[in-house]
Amino acid sequence: MAALPIKFGILGCADIARKVSRAITLSPNSTLYAVGSRSVEKAEKFARENGFPESAKVYGSYEAVLDDPDVDAVYIPLPTSLHIKWAVAAAQKKKHLLLEKPMALNVGDFDKILEACESSGVQIMDGTMWMHHPRTGKMKEFLKDSEQFGQLKSVQSCFTFAADKDFLENDIRVKPDLDALGALGDTGWYCVRSILWAADLDLPKSVLALRGTVFNSAGVILACSASLLWEDGKVATFHCSFLANLTMDVTVVGTNGTLRLHDFIIPFEEREASFFTAIKSGFTELVTAWEPKPSQHTVTTELPQEALLVTEFSRLVGSIKYEGAKPEKKWPTLSRKTQLILDAVKASIEKGYEIVEIVS
Amino acid sequence: MAALPIKFGILGCADIARKVSRAITLSPNSTLYAVGSRSVEKAEKFARENGFPESAKVYGSYEAVLDDPDVDAVYIPLPTSLHIKWAVAAAQKKKHLLLEKPMALNVGDFDKILEACESSGVQIMDGTMWMHHPRTGKMKEFLKDSEQFGQLKSVQSCFTFAADKDFLENDIRVKPDLDALGALGDTGWYCVRSILWAADLDLPKSVLALRGTVFNSAGVILACSASLLWEDGKVATFHCSFLANLTMDVTVVGTNGTLRLHDFIIPFEEREASFFTAIKSGFTELVTAWEPKPSQHTVTTELPQEALLVTEFSRLVGSIKYEGAKPEKKWPTLSRKTQLILDAVKASIEKGYEIVEIVS
Repeated sequence: MAALPIKFGILGCADIARKVSRAITLSPNSTLYAVGSRSVEKAEKFARENGFPESAKVYGSYEAVLDDPDVDAVYIPLPTSLHIKWAVAAAQKKKHLLLEKPMALNVGDFDKILEACESSGVQIMDGTMWMHHPRTGKMKEFLKDSEQFGQLKSVQSCFTFAADKDFLENDIRVKPDLDALGALGDTGWYCVRSILWAADLDLPKSVLALRGTVFNSAGVILACSASLLWEDGKVATFHCSFLANLTMDVTVVGTNGTLRLHDFIIPFEEREASFFTAIKSGFTELVTAWEPKPSQHTVTTELPQEALLVTEFSRLVGSIKYEGAKPEKKWPTLSRKTQLILDAVKASIEKGYEIVEIVS
Repeated sequence: MAALPIKFGILGCADIARKVSRAITLSPNSTLYAVGSRSVEKAEKFARENGFPESAKVYGSYEAVLDDPDVDAVYIPLPTSLHIKWAVAAAQKKKHLLLEKPMALNVGDFDKILEACESSGVQIMDGTMWMHHPRTGKMKEFLKDSEQFGQLKSVQSCFTFAADKDFLENDIRVKPDLDALGALGDTGWYCVRSILWAADLDLPKSVLALRGTVFNSAGVILACSASLLWEDGKVATFHCSFLANLTMDVTVVGTNGTLRLHDFIIPFEEREASFFTAIKSGFTELVTAWEPKPSQHTVTTELPQEALLVTEFSRLVGSIKYEGAKPEKKWPTLSRKTQLILDAVKASIEKGYEIVEIVS
């Protein structure tokens, strides 16, 4: 592609924007072009500390980034409650959208964002980085292998981390007016995504939150669990929390095979990542050991997963910009399904742990 | 101990009795002494093929084993529905009892067995082998470490195996008159045990079976899931099944640490077994890798876990026989709690997935 790199504007100086700024720099088809913050000093400091080129634009407002005609795409790591306002505004200004998860406070809001993107013909993608790691593709090959893996039967997913006192008091993810979905919107997003991914995006027919949800004094979820059931009998459970040691486990079991890993969201190492598969597992004659045993697979990557995310997003934006392609619907469809299940878990909790049917 | 080895009689020639016969031979304080089957030919064949000494007694009935005054202890691998009859009969004949899991069809039946054992002063222990692996003790040290592991928050446990056509048609574990608890009594027993073990035997306050139970045409459970909730907010889920690839995963998450393993019931290798721990896990500065990372621990054992089970059981029997000790209550207490939770899961399913409170 002889086309120019996609020029990114970043709205706000959230912590996660540092990682994504580095990813934009690392990605061969994108460049850091602008950053906007409510404080121009903060934006300047951010640009200075995060590898923005000398020529980068530094703005004292989000609007100014959207008004810059040279900005191709924006990365929005703002609190979830602000997504609808700024994502819609960005789409209306024809900016392609890389939006941090959760996409919105609910699927209704997300649909408004989606509508704005569709009417402007811009690409939207969520910031779920692990989807773009080559390990994820390798694992998918295994899950799609009807001989080795067979038919999916169950998924157990767990993403927890032990937030410190400062996080539990001050982070946007514990504030009802900023990230009202709390741990469900943050760690739960990834659990739900891993389950949907394993189920090949097949939506469950129903969702049941499990008793034991922990709320903070403002009513924001700090930990919760849920169970999902599909028409064809597949089942899944997940547990997400801000209150337990960092854990990212998924176990996916099919009729013939098993897939598991312990670092599905952020690999233990930046440049290589492992997963375990087991195929038609069984025992030695007296059932005293396994035969065959599971095996470990390691996948290396030159670029970290977040740079691969930016590369894929920029590729799609470039196709639209330079080749007149249409936006890729696969990514917003996946975001929407994830959001739909988060909504159902939340509704189940609010209804006193009733079963919630999924209507897509 | 200068005392003689404990003399075992085995009731029936179940497949699992082959593994336990070998374990009795391997164990330094026990010996194969008798086997009884409804067919004396079957018993003779079993004794010949499973390392019984020339002097061993071979009987054409279970009663005859119980009537042999030289038998110290019996191993009962009969179908669960027969446990109450034969376990009570054995206890009344003052035989110590190594009983296959599940202990009974319900806790009421188990209590009758327990009563018979208590009034005869005999030891009872269930056949849950992994409890006796030195790995289990090592893992327990980790879970008890308030600094490294902290307070337990959640457990996810999964034990499935892919039964073949013959099993699904003919095995005792799919027959309502033999092992009416099906996959719940078999694979579910281990899931529940792993959860109770992780919870330091603290009983949950309530149990909820999750929709999606698979039954065979005779109404026996082939797959099910459940969720457990404790007074202090701990949560656990498990999935057990005869219909998916052999998987034995447990993830135990505390406030400071995580424990996980993939072969908790039967280690991949007979003489060495691993587990993974993570302590105060976190990320590198830009959240692009883990720091510190989890670590793997390997525990070797000279005797396989089933021989260690027999050794521990025989040690307790020897203490009673030669030193006038009282039966050790720790083991039946653990069996009873496991059975109590199985009962609650079954009740929850039967009540249409209502929450069942645990009353101990």
